[in-house]
Amino acid sequence: MRLAARPVGLPKPSDWNFTEEKVVEPAEGQLLVKVLYLSLDPAMRGWMNDAKSYIPPVGLGEVMRAGAIGKVIASKHPKFAVGDEVSGAFGVQEYALSDGKGLIKVSSKLAPLPVYLGTLGMPGMTAYFGILDVGELKEGDTVVVSGAAGAVGTVVGQIAKIKGCRVIGIAGGADKCEWLVKELGFDAAIDYKSEDVKKALREHCPKGMDVYFDNVGGDILDAALTQLARGARIVICGAISQYNNTTPVKGPSNYLSLLVNRASMKGMVVFDYADRYADAAKEMAGWMMAGKLKSREDIVEGLNTFPDTLLKLFKGENTGKLVLKVSKD
Amino acid sequence: MRLAARPVGLPKPSDWNFTEEKVVEPAEGQLLVKVLYLSLDPAMRGWMNDAKSYIPPVGLGEVMRAGAIGKVIASKHPKFAVGDEVSGAFGVQEYALSDGKGLIKVSSKLAPLPVYLGTLGMPGMTAYFGILDVGELKEGDTVVVSGAAGAVGTVVGQIAKIKGCRVIGIAGGADKCEWLVKELGFDAAIDYKSEDVKKALREHCPKGMDVYFDNVGGDILDAALTQLARGARIVICGAISQYNNTTPVKGPSNYLSLLVNRASMKGMVVFDYADRYADAAKEMAGWMMAGKLKSREDIVEGLNTFPDTLLKLFKGENTGKLVLKVSKD
Repeated sequence: MRLAARPVGLPKPSDWNFTEEKVVEPAEGQLLVKVLYLSLDPAMRGWMNDAKSYIPPVGLGEVMRAGAIGKVIASKHPKFAVGDEVSGAFGVQEYALSDGKGLIKVSSKLAPLPVYLGTLGMPGMTAYFGILDVGELKEGDTVVVSGAAGAVGTVVGQIAKIKGCRVIGIAGGADKCEWLVKELGFDAAIDYKSEDVKKALREHCPKGMDVYFDNVGGDILDAALTQLARGARIVICGAISQYNNTTPVKGPSNYLSLLVNRASMKGMVVFDYADRYADAAKEMAGWMMAGKLKSREDIVEGLNTFPDTLLKLFKGENTGKLVLKVSKD
Repeated sequence: MRLAARPVGLPKPSDWNFTEEKVVEPAEGQLLVKVLYLSLDPAMRGWMNDAKSYIPPVGLGEVMRAGAIGKVIASKHPKFAVGDEVSGAFGVQEYALSDGKGLIKVSSKLAPLPVYLGTLGMPGMTAYFGILDVGELKEGDTVVVSGAAGAVGTVVGQIAKIKGCRVIGIAGGADKCEWLVKELGFDAAIDYKSEDVKKALREHCPKGMDVYFDNVGGDILDAALTQLARGARIVICGAISQYNNTTPVKGPSNYLSLLVNRASMKGMVVFDYADRYADAAKEMAGWMMAGKLKSREDIVEGLNTFPDTLLKLFKGENTGKLVLKVSKD
């Protein structure tokens, strides 16, 4: 799936170009991967813009960048053998050639493969380092997370519960909210589609929030700013409400609350923690084994559905990690 | 000078009520102060609004709150004697009764009295703790300060120079900019009234800024956000461009630059550092004696000019600390 045009607003079918090409045999030092599962992430929208960011944009005509899980089907690389299960940035395609750089071996014996794109993948790492390092989480903190039913939000909230915090999630829809509380053990959830978020935050956080983990930006970030505790930490992880804007990003009008409350707002990019991924994954796998951390994936089948399936993220239709199943395991 | 009405936008003469009353003798435990100099601060505008903040608003009909320097002219307080020079929140009036709480003795033998409202007063303390503690200043940093010719900005920039940083000031007008560079030793100054701030920042900070100390908010904050270095710290000290808004505060549209650059934005209130004021003042007085830190006050005479003189702050007409001289020393 190649990027055909720079989208304006929500990506349209015509922004994509589906091409079929012969699968090439790996050269010396390369391996060929059959892609099984693709990770669909809000950040993809940013990669489609021709703008300077933490990673270069995807070029027009290039295969769309995507994290993925695959199986090695041919190898002339000393470290990878046919049958190895691997995680890497294979892109939105059925087969990928790789020189092995950045590839991580995974195992379907330890966890279902899609989990390596969610809780044990980038979203899980983002949640782990975002809430623990950037958010400087302490036991007893009141924690609020937006996009709470998404791949990052579900893990943020559960880690905060594991660490002895009170956790309030903000998500869209009664089903998601019920699931957050009943299944994931959140203390409360606010349905931004039917509730007044500012008022609900006032009720659920009468003493203010100590950590606010923001995945959405826009009006919800502004509402959160009205309910900070003294010394609160805001983690800026994303702003999905703003990614498809055709007008300028909505800046947080209430940012002077940072001053009044001696609070901070800090941005993060998960790649900075790459040298600690392995330790984090080990700890998170332990929590999963102990039943303290639940992983949920929202799996859609068929590479051809990619243009539509990606939109589920921006429409808030996914619960848990959105994964595209490309081929059978 | 009493607050007569909650101002909408810039305070008007009719928002004030000038009253004359008999001066009362101090009761047991009280002292009477003759007010000599009043501190005029941007924060005063916030105190006039009926809104929750870091300090309660001034009530309608109450004497306007103001920091001031005065001389004790009558005392029934064991710790203060007639003739003592004192700093305290005496308010916009000629005489003030005090119970001694929060009063600090000063001395015109060590520094001219108005300096205790500026470089050795709240603005100086704000600059000191803001740039050193909140801004986590390091030698070699590129530092940008807005409102650079104001009471806080002048001190921020000079402290950063003392600490071995490159300092760029943003101020309004060629005179102020020239003064910042020639008199205060800033490396460069940007005149926001005649220059494109974003473009000028790109030229003066080709590698981005490590610390941005913001006194103004609005478009200048947004311009600064486009030019952050990796790991930059933004100190939110004030937002003078927004204090007289009749529309909502302009949130920083470019705040996602915090994410891309792993940067932070942190608010501060100087009162939190009260237990360290004395040490800071000692160090700053040392720098002044050594000629490394210059203090400038913009002194206007006459209590009756208060409503107009206050507006100089919001029109950017002051250079250095704006002080109202009430009575002769």
